[in-house]
Amino acid sequence: MYKISYEDELRLARTLLRACGMPGEDADIAGSVVTHSDFTGVYSHGISRLTGYLRLFRGGAYNPRPQVKVIKDGPAVLELDCDNALGVVTVNRAFDMLLPKARAQGIAICTGRRSSNIGCASYYGWRAAENDVIALVCCNTYLSMAPFGGAERLIGTNPIVVGVPTDEEYPIVMDISTSGVAMGKIKAYEREGRELPAGWANDAHGRPTSDPAKAYTVLPIGGHKGYGLAVMVDIVSGVLSGAGFGREIGSAMKRESENTGFCMIMIDPAHFMPIADFKRRADEYARMMKQSRPAEGVKEIFLPGEIEYRLFEKNRSEGIEVSEALQSELLGLAVELSVVPPGTDFAGLVEAARPSAG
Amino acid sequence: MYKISYEDELRLARTLLRACGMPGEDADIAGSVVTHSDFTGVYSHGISRLTGYLRLFRGGAYNPRPQVKVIKDGPAVLELDCDNALGVVTVNRAFDMLLPKARAQGIAICTGRRSSNIGCASYYGWRAAENDVIALVCCNTYLSMAPFGGAERLIGTNPIVVGVPTDEEYPIVMDISTSGVAMGKIKAYEREGRELPAGWANDAHGRPTSDPAKAYTVLPIGGHKGYGLAVMVDIVSGVLSGAGFGREIGSAMKRESENTGFCMIMIDPAHFMPIADFKRRADEYARMMKQSRPAEGVKEIFLPGEIEYRLFEKNRSEGIEVSEALQSELLGLAVELSVVPPGTDFAGLVEAARPSAG
Repeated sequence: MYKISYEDELRLARTLLRACGMPGEDADIAGSVVTHSDFTGVYSHGISRLTGYLRLFRGGAYNPRPQVKVIKDGPAVLELDCDNALGVVTVNRAFDMLLPKARAQGIAICTGRRSSNIGCASYYGWRAAENDVIALVCCNTYLSMAPFGGAERLIGTNPIVVGVPTDEEYPIVMDISTSGVAMGKIKAYEREGRELPAGWANDAHGRPTSDPAKAYTVLPIGGHKGYGLAVMVDIVSGVLSGAGFGREIGSAMKRESENTGFCMIMIDPAHFMPIADFKRRADEYARMMKQSRPAEGVKEIFLPGEIEYRLFEKNRSEGIEVSEALQSELLGLAVELSVVPPGTDFAGLVEAARPSAG
Repeated sequence: MYKISYEDELRLARTLLRACGMPGEDADIAGSVVTHSDFTGVYSHGISRLTGYLRLFRGGAYNPRPQVKVIKDGPAVLELDCDNALGVVTVNRAFDMLLPKARAQGIAICTGRRSSNIGCASYYGWRAAENDVIALVCCNTYLSMAPFGGAERLIGTNPIVVGVPTDEEYPIVMDISTSGVAMGKIKAYEREGRELPAGWANDAHGRPTSDPAKAYTVLPIGGHKGYGLAVMVDIVSGVLSGAGFGREIGSAMKRESENTGFCMIMIDPAHFMPIADFKRRADEYARMMKQSRPAEGVKEIFLPGEIEYRLFEKNRSEGIEVSEALQSELLGLAVELSVVPPGTDFAGLVEAARPSAG
C-alpha cells in the first residue's frame, strides 16, 4: 500500500494526461478533477480512470486535442460544440466562460453538444461555491435506464449537481444521479456474488430482478418522479444543446463518439441581495438543519456535500492509499507512455512526475 | 352527482373568488388555475380549495388585494415581494413579467418572497409550453419533511415543475414533489384505517412508522437524493428570494403569514436553435420514449405530464362530476358571500355565475 499526497497525485495525473496527448492546460484541468474525485472519496472517477481515457483517445471516441467551437455567444447564453473532448475539460471551460456572463446578467446558461463524461461533478459545485455563484450542472450519459414502464435502455443516470456558496459553514453541494444506483454498483454486486436489493434493477423484460447477472436497466429514484427528472436532464442537456439523446448516444467502448451533452445554469446571488447577506442566510439555513433534532440512533445531520468536504480535509492532510492493483495499472500506463522506464516502482513514478508538472 | 362543464366551473370559481374580495383580474387568474387543477384530475388543488382561501383571507394569512412590489427589475432578473398574495396569482404574474426577459436574453429568473401556496403547479408548465419556452418553477412550502437523518419538520414537500414545448406531441411537463407522498395522503390513510407502506413516513422520533396516526414527517424520494433536491429548492425559493425557510415559515392555519417563496427560471430555446427545430427535436424525444418496448405487463409508456393532458381533453369534452359534499360546501360559501340567496341549489348557483363573470 502506498500513501499519496494531494500534490503528488495532482502532478502524477497531470503528467500522465499530458503523456496521453492532452495539451498542458487541458491536462492540468483534468488532473485537478480526477484528484478532487479521489480525495473526496469518489474513486470511480479518480486517477483509476486514466487508462480508460487513453484507450478512448486511441480508439477515437474521445479527442485529446479538441477544437471547442462557440456556436452562440450572447450576453446570457453560451452554446458550445465540444468536438468530442473530455467532458471534464469542456465543463470547466464552460464554467470559466459563463462566470462573467452570470456576474453581468445575474443568470446565464451554457449548453455543450458532442461532449462526453463530465467526471466527478461535485467539482463544478465546489467551483461555484468558491466563486460566490450558484451553479446547476447536469448532463445526459450512456444509456442505463428505461422510460418509466419501459424495458429498453434509453436514458442515462443523468446526474444533477448544484453548488451553493456559504460564509463560515461548508458550501452546500448536491451531487446526485437520477437513478437509484449506477450500473457499476450492480457489476460490483455480481463480482461479489451478492443479491440486489429490491428496487435497484429490472431485467431485459422490464421485470424486477435481484440477480445482478440479469440486471439490464437501473431504476429511477422515486419511480415516475426520478424518471421525470431524468427526462428533463435529457431535454436541456440533449435536446436543447443539439447533442444526442436516447439511441443517438454513442458507446465510447465501441469507439463511437458519445455525443452526450451538458447544461450549466449559473446564478449570481449578488443580483438579489449583497453577497455577504446571501452567504450569511445560507449559513443560517445550514445551521438550522445541522442543529436540529436528529432521528433516534443518528449522531449527526449532514448538509448535502458536507461529508465530501470533511473527507477532503482529512485526506488532504493525511494522503490517500493507492492499492497495489492501481499502482501497477498506473505504472503500466506510465511505461507505455514512456513517462518512466520499465522496472520503475510506484514511488519512482511519483518522484518522476514531481519536476515535470509541478 | 352534478356534472359541470369546464366553462361553468371556470365562471363559478371566478365569481366566488371575486366575492371573496379578490380584484377581477386576480380572481380570473386564480379561477383558471383551480379549474385546470380539477380538469387535470388534481382535485386537491381545485375548486374545493375556495372555502379554505376565504378562511385564510379572513384570518389575515393571505391577502386578497395585495400590492406586489418589484424589488429588482434587471434585464434577466426579477425579484418580487408578493405581499402575502395567493401564490397562484403571483406566480402567474411573475410568468407574464419574465416572458419578455427570457425572449430577449435567452434565460431569465424571478424569485418571490412573502408568497404562499402556488396551487396546481403543472399550470405554469402548460403555460411555458404554450408560449414556446422551457420554464422551471419551484417553491418551498409549509413544513412536513425532516433533514436526512433528522426528526424535526424543517422542510416542505418543495415541488419542482418543468414545462417543455413540443410540436405535434403533448408538451412534456414534469410536476413532482421532492417527498414521496404529501401529508394529505397520510391523513387519507388515517381516515380509511389503512397502514402506511414502508418508506412513507417517520414518527416524531424519526423512526419509520406504518401507523398514519403516528406519522410526523414524510420522507424524501430516493433518501439523501430527494433531501438534496428539497434543500436546493429551499435555497433558491427561500434563501435567495429573501423569503422564509425552515422554522421561519408561518402556518397559514394559525393565521400567520406563510412567507414561503418561489423561483422561476425561464429559457427561450430560440436562442439555441430555430424554435421549430427545438420542438421537432422534443417531438422526436417523446416519440422515441413512447414507441420503445414496454415492460412486461405494461400497455403504454407515458411521457411526464401526458396523462394529465389526456385527462384534460376527456374532461373538457365530458365535464367532471361534483360530489354532493362539494356541492353543499360551495353552496354554503356562495350563500355566505351573498352570491346566491339561501335555498338555491347547485344548478342554480352555476346558472347564477354564468352572466356575471362570463
